[in-house]
Amino acid sequence: MRCVILGGAGFLGRHIGQALAQARHEVWSVDRSPALPEASVPWLVGQVKAEYHDVASWWRRCSGADVLIHLASSTVPATANVAPLADVQHNLMGTLQLLQGLREMDVRPRLLFASSGGAVYGRPQTVPIDEDHPKLPMGAYGVTKLAIEHHLRIEEAQHALPYRIIRLSNPYGEWQRPQGVQGVIAVFAHRALHGEALDVWGDGSVVRDFVHAADVGRAFCAAATHQGDGRVFNVGAGKGISVNEIIVSLERLLERCIERRVLPGRLFDPPVNVLDIARARAELNWEPALSFEVGLERTLRWMRTLP
Amino acid sequence: MRCVILGGAGFLGRHIGQALAQARHEVWSVDRSPALPEASVPWLVGQVKAEYHDVASWWRRCSGADVLIHLASSTVPATANVAPLADVQHNLMGTLQLLQGLREMDVRPRLLFASSGGAVYGRPQTVPIDEDHPKLPMGAYGVTKLAIEHHLRIEEAQHALPYRIIRLSNPYGEWQRPQGVQGVIAVFAHRALHGEALDVWGDGSVVRDFVHAADVGRAFCAAATHQGDGRVFNVGAGKGISVNEIIVSLERLLERCIERRVLPGRLFDPPVNVLDIARARAELNWEPALSFEVGLERTLRWMRTLP
Repeated sequence: MRCVILGGAGFLGRHIGQALAQARHEVWSVDRSPALPEASVPWLVGQVKAEYHDVASWWRRCSGADVLIHLASSTVPATANVAPLADVQHNLMGTLQLLQGLREMDVRPRLLFASSGGAVYGRPQTVPIDEDHPKLPMGAYGVTKLAIEHHLRIEEAQHALPYRIIRLSNPYGEWQRPQGVQGVIAVFAHRALHGEALDVWGDGSVVRDFVHAADVGRAFCAAATHQGDGRVFNVGAGKGISVNEIIVSLERLLERCIERRVLPGRLFDPPVNVLDIARARAELNWEPALSFEVGLERTLRWMRTLP
Repeated sequence: MRCVILGGAGFLGRHIGQALAQARHEVWSVDRSPALPEASVPWLVGQVKAEYHDVASWWRRCSGADVLIHLASSTVPATANVAPLADVQHNLMGTLQLLQGLREMDVRPRLLFASSGGAVYGRPQTVPIDEDHPKLPMGAYGVTKLAIEHHLRIEEAQHALPYRIIRLSNPYGEWQRPQGVQGVIAVFAHRALHGEALDVWGDGSVVRDFVHAADVGRAFCAAATHQGDGRVFNVGAGKGISVNEIIVSLERLLERCIERRVLPGRLFDPPVNVLDIARARAELNWEPALSFEVGLERTLRWMRTLP
């Protein structure tokens, strides 16, 4: 199948592209960033520099698509809250333009959308969080993700566009930028490698669900050909790791002590956020293959190759 | 209290304005339409012609507000589905601009938002529908209403803006335009008065919840001063009326038979949609005061005065 990744040059896009290519799919990337050196993305058949929402600008250059993987996003939770209008404009209105553009095409590709299990549910009322948990996002990022999810459901009902939604926990792994505003693993690993202290808010007991991006790639691969009734799947580790445990794992892998800089706890951080991945296990026949230690080791190995 | 109604010149705005004035509040209207003749809106202290989202353009002219009633909307369900981008731009982004504008003010008015019980829940899974029913909107209109609801919740949490959401069933009554694209009561009453046939999709057994707009006005009045923890309230009749029953009521009030034009049933119409109004009864100490027959009679009486 021809798979086109919108946002294929990013951290997740690379992992998902690799996984799709390993499963013998033809993989294209559409990205607003300039094309990457071909040697760095050997799994790609082609790259198109274009805005994801302007379907006409990339559709024919990829010769269409059987599966579209929609990862394009201009925000992360922190930036969406600071500039919610820009978040709505690029991500929600952009996706509506994408859907309208696809209606013009003579085929209906399957659309896989990367949503956020950390953002759409809000403060967990039960843990682990399954897909039917109430959706009460605590920030603009989650509101936009949820609105896009609703529009996809409506688009299938009204215009027969098949879709699957993957609600991700906290992906980490190679290619995640350590200078980013999200991705605590990348930030911690990079600082630890360079002998810098790690900022810990509160007592470090906050628990999150971290999933290696290679496992995320395999989940998208499964969703690309899934035949059941399910439309929304949590994809995470299904178990939690505390901030303190991350640091202990880093200390073990680096074989030295890491300095912590303790800051006041942040009240708005829910103490625990772990996804229930039973549905993905049952319907996608997927589960994470990499343990946290192995995933972290891979991440560190890659990070050592950075200049 | 000073109450400013955003969209105060419309059908609901007039009823809510009247109800607030009867409760001795000072009522202003902000509307993009030209000011109405003062004699036609005697309950208003003042009118400002402005776009609701441009707070600076109306805030000082109303001398600020203790309560803002946000009814401004450029769409109805049918038009939002045809032009979802415009719906998001005017209604969602407009509301985000409103919220940003209010942050600049030195007081935090209470914001009352008119949401839609007919749109945000989607196909009813249980009837009557209470406020905790899953939210699976079946059209763009409901997705936008729901996104605005989430942003209000977040705005209170992050910026201390007090709010209440009123999820309306199907309001009807005086001032509802009979040529509109929504409002079956107004359309039916107008056609029946003029001896025209009524379009009935299917067997006329479809049941909806109709609430007279004067009762909606009283509900907003109660929400303006509500002190409890509730933030979201269904406001409807709490019981259903079928399309056939509407016609029978019209026949009784007009004392003659009305011709029906039977059209094929519309599959996307849920057979029943009735709101559970127990929370509004308990917390707002509100319930509808007008029976359907009395409300319909008032509507017909007003409609006879139209040119």
